[in-house]
Amino acid sequence: FKNGLFVETEDKDFNFKVGGRVQVDGGFTSAPSTGSRSNVDFRRARLEVEGKAYKNWYYKFQYDFTGTGSQGIRDAFLAYRAKLLPSEITSEPITFQVGSQYEPFSMETVTSSKHITFIERALPGALAPDRHIGARVGLGDKHWAVQAGVFSTSFGQDKAQNPAATGHQYWDLTTRAIYAPIVEEDKLLHFGGSFMYHKPNDSTAAQDPNNLLPGSGSRDETDILKNTYIVVPSAQALNCSPAYKAATGVALLWTPGYLQNGCLKSSYNYNFEMAATYGPFSVQGEYSGAHYERDAGTALALGNNGGSSLEYSGYYVQGSVFLTGESRAASYKGYDKDWNSPGTFSDIAIKNPLGKGGWGAWEIAARYSELNLNNGGLVDSNYAYLAAVAGNAAQKALANTATLGGREENLTLALNWYPVRGVRLQANWTRAMTLVAPSDKPYLNGQHPSTFLFRTQVFW
Amino acid sequence: FKNGLFVETEDKDFNFKVGGRVQVDGGFTSAPSTGSRSNVDFRRARLEVEGKAYKNWYYKFQYDFTGTGSQGIRDAFLAYRAKLLPSEITSEPITFQVGSQYEPFSMETVTSSKHITFIERALPGALAPDRHIGARVGLGDKHWAVQAGVFSTSFGQDKAQNPAATGHQYWDLTTRAIYAPIVEEDKLLHFGGSFMYHKPNDSTAAQDPNNLLPGSGSRDETDILKNTYIVVPSAQALNCSPAYKAATGVALLWTPGYLQNGCLKSSYNYNFEMAATYGPFSVQGEYSGAHYERDAGTALALGNNGGSSLEYSGYYVQGSVFLTGESRAASYKGYDKDWNSPGTFSDIAIKNPLGKGGWGAWEIAARYSELNLNNGGLVDSNYAYLAAVAGNAAQKALANTATLGGREENLTLALNWYPVRGVRLQANWTRAMTLVAPSDKPYLNGQHPSTFLFRTQVFW
Amino acid sequence: FKNGLFVETEDKDFNFKVGGRVQVDGGFTSAPSTGSRSNVDFRRARLEVEGKAYKNWYYKFQYDFTGTGSQGIRDAFLAYRAKLLPSEITSEPITFQVGSQYEPFSMETVTSSKHITFIERALPGALAPDRHIGARVGLGDKHWAVQAGVFSTSFGQDKAQNPAATGHQYWDLTTRAIYAPIVEEDKLLHFGGSFMYHKPNDSTAAQDPNNLLPGSGSRDETDILKNTYIVVPSAQALNCSPAYKAATGVALLWTPGYLQNGCLKSSYNYNFEMAATYGPFSVQGEYSGAHYERDAGTALALGNNGGSSLEYSGYYVQGSVFLTGESRAASYKGYDKDWNSPGTFSDIAIKNPLGKGGWGAWEIAARYSELNLNNGGLVDSNYAYLAAVAGNAAQKALANTATLGGREENLTLALNWYPVRGVRLQANWTRAMTLVAPSDKPYLNGQHPSTFLFRTQVFW
Repeated sequence: FKNGLFVETEDKDFNFKVGGRVQVDGGFTSAPSTGSRSNVDFRRARLEVEGKAYKNWYYKFQYDFTGTGSQGIRDAFLAYRAKLLPSEITSEPITFQVGSQYEPFSMETVTSSKHITFIERALPGALAPDRHIGARVGLGDKHWAVQAGVFSTSFGQDKAQNPAATGHQYWDLTTRAIYAPIVEEDKLLHFGGSFMYHKPNDSTAAQDPNNLLPGSGSRDETDILKNTYIVVPSAQALNCSPAYKAATGVALLWTPGYLQNGCLKSSYNYNFEMAATYGPFSVQGEYSGAHYERDAGTALALGNNGGSSLEYSGYYVQGSVFLTGESRAASYKGYDKDWNSPGTFSDIAIKNPLGKGGWGAWEIAARYSELNLNNGGLVDSNYAYLAAVAGNAAQKALANTATLGGREENLTLALNWYPVRGVRLQANWTRAMTLVAPSDKPYLNGQHPSTFLFRTQVFW
Repeated sequence: FKNGLFVETEDKDFNFKVGGRVQVDGGFTSAPSTGSRSNVDFRRARLEVEGKAYKNWYYKFQYDFTGTGSQGIRDAFLAYRAKLLPSEITSEPITFQVGSQYEPFSMETVTSSKHITFIERALPGALAPDRHIGARVGLGDKHWAVQAGVFSTSFGQDKAQNPAATGHQYWDLTTRAIYAPIVEEDKLLHFGGSFMYHKPNDSTAAQDPNNLLPGSGSRDETDILKNTYIVVPSAQALNCSPAYKAATGVALLWTPGYLQNGCLKSSYNYNFEMAATYGPFSVQGEYSGAHYERDAGTALALGNNGGSSLEYSGYYVQGSVFLTGESRAASYKGYDKDWNSPGTFSDIAIKNPLGKGGWGAWEIAARYSELNLNNGGLVDSNYAYLAAVAGNAAQKALANTATLGGREENLTLALNWYPVRGVRLQANWTRAMTLVAPSDKPYLNGQHPSTFLFRTQVFW
Repeated sequence: FKNGLFVETEDKDFNFKVGGRVQVDGGFTSAPSTGSRSNVDFRRARLEVEGKAYKNWYYKFQYDFTGTGSQGIRDAFLAYRAKLLPSEITSEPITFQVGSQYEPFSMETVTSSKHITFIERALPGALAPDRHIGARVGLGDKHWAVQAGVFSTSFGQDKAQNPAATGHQYWDLTTRAIYAPIVEEDKLLHFGGSFMYHKPNDSTAAQDPNNLLPGSGSRDETDILKNTYIVVPSAQALNCSPAYKAATGVALLWTPGYLQNGCLKSSYNYNFEMAATYGPFSVQGEYSGAHYERDAGTALALGNNGGSSLEYSGYYVQGSVFLTGESRAASYKGYDKDWNSPGTFSDIAIKNPLGKGGWGAWEIAARYSELNLNNGGLVDSNYAYLAAVAGNAAQKALANTATLGGREENLTLALNWYPVRGVRLQANWTRAMTLVAPSDKPYLNGQHPSTFLFRTQVFW
């Protein structure tokens, strides 16, 4: 018996589970140059059903009620598992999955939001893909796993990226491989790498958030406060146009009629991950990069900075200690325990739960993360071209820095309390140690906004 | 024990079930004159709970998460069943239902989307009503059933048909009667007929899709690709105005100020259905018609084609064979087995499921369907009137063909694989054999667009 | 075993429940001066899961599918219960709750919509707060209870009250205390009082419906027909501006540029409640008041009626009789039986259910309710000021009555049938006995609109 509902037949050929999670967040932030801000909101409110039908077939359907209509759909897939490989390679079955699921990319991204150490994922998560509809194959064992798949439409974001009436939908090829030489109850060593190739759709190449526009998925680790300091202005990076659309009420600087969307030819993202645990001590880190290939002719003709290819990157390192002696290693799931998201951490086995003679588990953690959305410096030779097009000095300057999306470094300190299984209270304090403004928000330069967040989480 | 969750008390007075379905579709189409198109999407993602409270009371609530807010509500009703008739007539109880439910009309329409043979329902389904809120009574036995009800507001569509602040809501009277002289494990013969009378609401007579505007519910059997070739332009058929609103950016040709909505007086739809099965072979067919009564004075004064009444119709015939020997007859449910939608097909009993020594069930099928939304020919005498109003030759021609919604004939070939209960993989290829363009899309004339669709379905 | 699904471990440390409700309403009304109106709709369509994890932890998540996205979230909280008080005070544990929940205010407001006697809550409910996200503590026993909490963002309404990018969110302090000297199977005497202090947020003080704008939550006890006769025009009461926005198509009378939102400093609401039952007879009544403190300087400088503080109030009294002998007292839940909403009525224990030899329970009821949103009379001294600003006599008159939101008295007669547990059929007839028009709807003066509503309800 678990917290939620779980039923199973005696021969274990069938089972069914109803689960869910509710995360209530509150927080305040010192918004740069505009004073402070506070808010209270639900971060996630999900229900899910999952089950096993016959011994080889699995399904899962998860919905987040903070989303609207089909945008609230999260995991929704059918899986088939069969032993097709000789047991010298693996004793575990191969997994085939079709439906809405995470692309296999980055340890922290595919770790359940119930179990990530901090309230929000780190800054470089803005370069990782979200859930998409697709087909995936996975294989592995206790110590290793490889997943690969082809993906298309996403539900986790707005559906603006649908192709036009006559266009083709975009698609991704994504793979993640992990290797964990040490997997014990209180010791862990884990390595991994991921790669995604993206082919944009015919008409809306620039409008797939989290996937294409660098930084658009970033909320600066402060989701309910909706901070978005750094992001590459969309039109600049991918539309082959130095013009950009200002926040509100300001018209486009200029958009020559012969410029069209779709100048992005393709992109690829890559990620390296590492995690190690020794008793109550745990460290984890990832490095992510994104590379965009543009149509060189159009981009250069317009004097667009960065030329035909753009590079962005980010990283984070984090450490945590369980003051009450629990080990994160015990919550690690290899492919043998979690074929959907192998190589991630799950819920902590609390040694002395509250109400059973103890005070639950207590954890402190720190993280340093960086996201760099700047690409190249000012290209002087473009100035002449832009000068002829842009109206005045301010516009020229903006145009010239068109691909500068900003750079941010954050330090986060965290305190987590796990009174009983399924319940967690979290407090996070985040300070932007470095903030280099994107081209459209010059007032952010040199600011050091701080954010305090508090979360009450329950899952069942 | 079933795939999902089903619990029951020992005296069978109470039970409760949690079910659901997920359909993931992918496909591409050769869109006429504008090149090809592809997409991937969820077609349906539903959860449902249903139960029995005391022995006579039943409830069901079903939600489709691809809908938004209350538009996602599907079945949501309370039912009471009691033996009120002498057993010479029927040994089954009478059923009273209140809530959101299908109007009893057309075999294929009321068959669950989990169990229809093809990925999308046939073209004439555009003339059948969707779910509406109403009250219904049903009675029958193994070999026959009669259902009748009064219905109003619908949730399956947009809520634009709500009456204005001072208006009355529309309502329907609908009935379906079926008779199946042969109901055996591998033989079936089934006949049926349906009739719906519709009284429009005071202010929005023309805005009830699937119910009033002929063809607006049609997606040409290619839902996720959003093809809609033929449809009667709304203002033409029901607003007593030959003007119509073009797709995008084109203003109304003309809308004299003294013309109002609501010139539709009433409408009725009718349907005939037939199905027969002999071992693995199965055939099924339906014919649907729709008749619209308009205010003759207004309609004729304006020279509207078709005069005071308009007629539309459609049909389909389909055949299928189970290569692995299963019989569709075994999945037929009379009123004794399914009092909500009697006379429909349910899930196939697979002879040799995958993983139990077999390869599941394999089915091939073909369908020919037609929808005719043209009404009458050009009425020359109108020309003089229109000539005085319309500005130029092109507008005159359009006005003169105002009630021509087009005609389409489709051929579909299908391959279905049922590996285990609850899982189905489907592939459909559809070609428009005949396409007569509606008055607002002349470029469709003589085109033969083809569509390929693929579906992965799981239900529990 | 209950109607829905309820499972529990043998040691009762864990349990889990899936429940829901569907309410289908139909009705018509004689809309004043504009003729009659009818409609059919779902009033509520909810699913909920709740459970107990370990013996002290509880969670609940409830969603209403007639809402859109996160606006459909109803109860969604985590609760912790522990015996912290000596047993001389109470033998029941203290309850701590975090999440979306009703602010503890007014007996009828916190009573489940499944169990209120009439189809809609009484008029003064427009002065009570809806559910909000917050933290609450409760304690009590069979005969008494005290609940208090701090609350912020609401999901039951639109999210327009979110603070601007640099603003702070609003918050409420709310408490309710109840005392029931007589709690027996067929006798009950209950008293209670509630108080709420509200601090508006920085930028949208006037835009929190049900909470701030007096009367905006009122649907005149006719929800699906969307009657809203009386309500204080928003800009008048809280924006320190006598200008107001007319219903549709009429521009603002005048809004001087130096006027800003946020002139509301704070507000408080209070409520007194009483209920008594003797065998099948039951009476219940409540009185509610609301007080708004405005920035005196701005408000008076503009000649706004009511000066720096505004007062609104309402009340209702109701009586009911069970013709079949049931007593409402048996359904009363003290804190010992319902720690979430203590001091409310729950479902009736039907003596002779339909199908078990009886005809269910039959109840007749009557209610008289009043809501007074007028505040002060015409202030002549303002006239001079307004005369200089407003353009003509009509505008002057409107400006001068700016804080008159109207007054309404309703009489409602009801017939309820409870055939079996979980099912109820209701019929209500409501007549506006007194209707004093708000300043923006003068045509309502002296009207007596009548409304007939019918509901079919099932819950499990």
